[in-house]
Amino acid sequence: MIDIKNIQEIKIIVGDEWVSAGQSVRELHSHDESFHTPVLPDVVVWPHSTEEVSNIVKWAYEKDIPITPWGVGTSLEGNPIPVRNGISIDFQEMNKVLAIRQEDFQVDVQAGVVYKELNKTLGHHGLLFPPDPGAAATIGGMIGNNASGIRTVKYGATKDYVMRLTVVLPGGDVIHAGNRARKSSSGYNLCALFTGSEGTLGIVTEATLRLVGLPVNFMAVRAVFPTVLNATNTVFQVMSSGLSPSAMELLDGKVMEVLNRDRGYSLHEQPTLLMEFNGYSETGLREEMACVEEICQENACSFLDKGIGASERSRLWDMRHLTFESIKRSHTNLLPLIMDVAVPLSRYSEIVTFAREEVKDLVAYVFGHAGDGNVHVVVMDNPEDKGRWARVEEANRKIVLKALELEGTCTGEHGVGIGKRQFLEIEHGESLALMQRIKALLDPKDLMNPGKFFV
Amino acid sequence: MIDIKNIQEIKIIVGDEWVSAGQSVRELHSHDESFHTPVLPDVVVWPHSTEEVSNIVKWAYEKDIPITPWGVGTSLEGNPIPVRNGISIDFQEMNKVLAIRQEDFQVDVQAGVVYKELNKTLGHHGLLFPPDPGAAATIGGMIGNNASGIRTVKYGATKDYVMRLTVVLPGGDVIHAGNRARKSSSGYNLCALFTGSEGTLGIVTEATLRLVGLPVNFMAVRAVFPTVLNATNTVFQVMSSGLSPSAMELLDGKVMEVLNRDRGYSLHEQPTLLMEFNGYSETGLREEMACVEEICQENACSFLDKGIGASERSRLWDMRHLTFESIKRSHTNLLPLIMDVAVPLSRYSEIVTFAREEVKDLVAYVFGHAGDGNVHVVVMDNPEDKGRWARVEEANRKIVLKALELEGTCTGEHGVGIGKRQFLEIEHGESLALMQRIKALLDPKDLMNPGKFFV
Repeated sequence: MIDIKNIQEIKIIVGDEWVSAGQSVRELHSHDESFHTPVLPDVVVWPHSTEEVSNIVKWAYEKDIPITPWGVGTSLEGNPIPVRNGISIDFQEMNKVLAIRQEDFQVDVQAGVVYKELNKTLGHHGLLFPPDPGAAATIGGMIGNNASGIRTVKYGATKDYVMRLTVVLPGGDVIHAGNRARKSSSGYNLCALFTGSEGTLGIVTEATLRLVGLPVNFMAVRAVFPTVLNATNTVFQVMSSGLSPSAMELLDGKVMEVLNRDRGYSLHEQPTLLMEFNGYSETGLREEMACVEEICQENACSFLDKGIGASERSRLWDMRHLTFESIKRSHTNLLPLIMDVAVPLSRYSEIVTFAREEVKDLVAYVFGHAGDGNVHVVVMDNPEDKGRWARVEEANRKIVLKALELEGTCTGEHGVGIGKRQFLEIEHGESLALMQRIKALLDPKDLMNPGKFFV
Repeated sequence: MIDIKNIQEIKIIVGDEWVSAGQSVRELHSHDESFHTPVLPDVVVWPHSTEEVSNIVKWAYEKDIPITPWGVGTSLEGNPIPVRNGISIDFQEMNKVLAIRQEDFQVDVQAGVVYKELNKTLGHHGLLFPPDPGAAATIGGMIGNNASGIRTVKYGATKDYVMRLTVVLPGGDVIHAGNRARKSSSGYNLCALFTGSEGTLGIVTEATLRLVGLPVNFMAVRAVFPTVLNATNTVFQVMSSGLSPSAMELLDGKVMEVLNRDRGYSLHEQPTLLMEFNGYSETGLREEMACVEEICQENACSFLDKGIGASERSRLWDMRHLTFESIKRSHTNLLPLIMDVAVPLSRYSEIVTFAREEVKDLVAYVFGHAGDGNVHVVVMDNPEDKGRWARVEEANRKIVLKALELEGTCTGEHGVGIGKRQFLEIEHGESLALMQRIKALLDPKDLMNPGKFFV
């Protein structure tokens, strides 16, 4: 427990106005967007530099005070909940784009930069940071969770874009991992070790991100199918055809219903694939379109809406990005449990069918990044109703176990946090012991985002 | 030192015929393709399974005997030289393709599979494992060194294709890291930790590799420029244009000279870019071609040879893949030191100019993966002539230090091995201490490929 004397000492590090133990501030930092039980931090700190973070961590580590980093709280597995209280380090003030290196296709950022804001800025330079998880996530949070999203089928996840990291290690030492070259075989890949480690091994304060050039031309397709199996077959055939989709999203009929009801659309309320392709040549895209149409028709596609150009693309993604908001707005008295498993592509229809069966008597919506084999099931229910919520959690457990049986993963993109800890042993077997040894090596006092990853 | 009793014990593990302490076998396993001083292993072992590797490692670890894995010996920094003798584990017998999972875009292989053979097999299924280092490397060696090559500008390095690894840890325990899903945020990224670790943390025995669909159409361009700067400017402009080159190689005038002399070509003996683009639509590629031509012309291109189709592409890469062999054949009495640094793209012309100046009084050839900022300088000289060789090594040292000053890396793709150990502290600073702690955690006896990575 942090007392007033402690708070005075933290104020010396970061300045009076950047420390708060006020109730509303602590409440804001007690939860993310998941149903996991909120826990109040003792104090919230807003550092402005790596040096300040280092000094906070050094001070806290000496005093055995837990430290949990905080981006903006949009995570979905309880990842930034300070379950053992202590300090919540909020990166809101470390939100500077430090350097845009156009000729290198790189950007240097502080961890608190929101990726959507970053991409607005980068767009003026013809550049793009591709991972796109949808929420208002910060770069630090995305690195912590190895976030991905709708463009991952073509561009990969956050891990594929981390070139350099500044990390404050447990105890306060600062390291710089990686370099600015586009490739390297020099030493152990520490950037990859920290990416996805959710602050349990250290705190990322700055990053150099690899960028791509903004795509020139776009093609957008919305294809409606009688069954989920038709849709997932289409996914496989498109990916085998030599085409390179930049997004390939599945929404089930119930999701389309909610979008119609909440947003006034008139969409077909059947399994739907949203696909995007990009490329240099519009003529080339038209040829690709013909191939996509043919594959869709072979799979009993009942309706196909297609278009070429940036506005067609925006229309498609407005719809997709509204999904979660529309679902929440349709059930204002309920909270979501968002399942997030991924399986090999050949097992995608199996996991989707299994999941739909498991949640058929719940208020549930199925969608996902089909091109990655990643499925989300949003169940809306009331965590206060222990009996009902146990049923929701049991469905989640069964779906995760099925995904693991299919040689997949318990989390495609939301991270482990609190919600997936129970599955790591089943997923990783003997590897989990090695992860625990690495954790103990770096954080022997178990003070860095404690209560996450490991049961 | 291993004695006859030891050899008997190893024979019990793998069978009589799969152990040899014969002089010629030991000599074969004493060196790679670099100039580094050969060191004989005491014994060479050819295991057939992960279990046998595990038993060898367990046995050796108990007896404090060093273990060095061996692919096929094509590495260039002394990576598989058993500098402290002991056991050389040759993976030649673990060369099975275990399963091709076409619908998942995956293949399961043993570590001794040669990637070129693998790609021949995969081609029948419309699949490709993109990393292409050129030599007859094994998958195990490529994972150990995080190998890359000519396609990395579009497709990434080996690390980007490792989904699952079976690893024998120091002491003999076996772990399975990763899963079969195309994306995951579950636990620490152990696959990334082992990839590029050159057998210093454990031995990779099997891998699941991510694949891509075989490209459908190709466009190949050979463009000749009056200066290296014209060529490197072209690289940057092509990469900024919205085009996505699948290869972008620079060869200097001297390399073209050697190719003409050795192979009877009639190529322009000036800085040359070899570029490949691939895509679904031939029409689309023709539009891309027009854009590439325009950029080349803006940069004073004096000759441009272009073509669309698989045969045009083969013609281009036959030329490129012959480069190193032609250089070696032109100087049969000399050995190569092959420099391998990478820098941010904006510094590429600077490092190439610097390198050319440093080696101007040596027998030297400059080429590289320009789209990655990776440059190779091959110097042919005589390591026996200590004075001359010191001059060669000094040039290498200066070029590496320049690359690090430019925020690059001491090795773009050949790994650390023996040759780059001296630079890790300068490149990684405080991060090197963390690498050493990880090494000590996993391999406390320092028996796994000892004498590599760390000075």
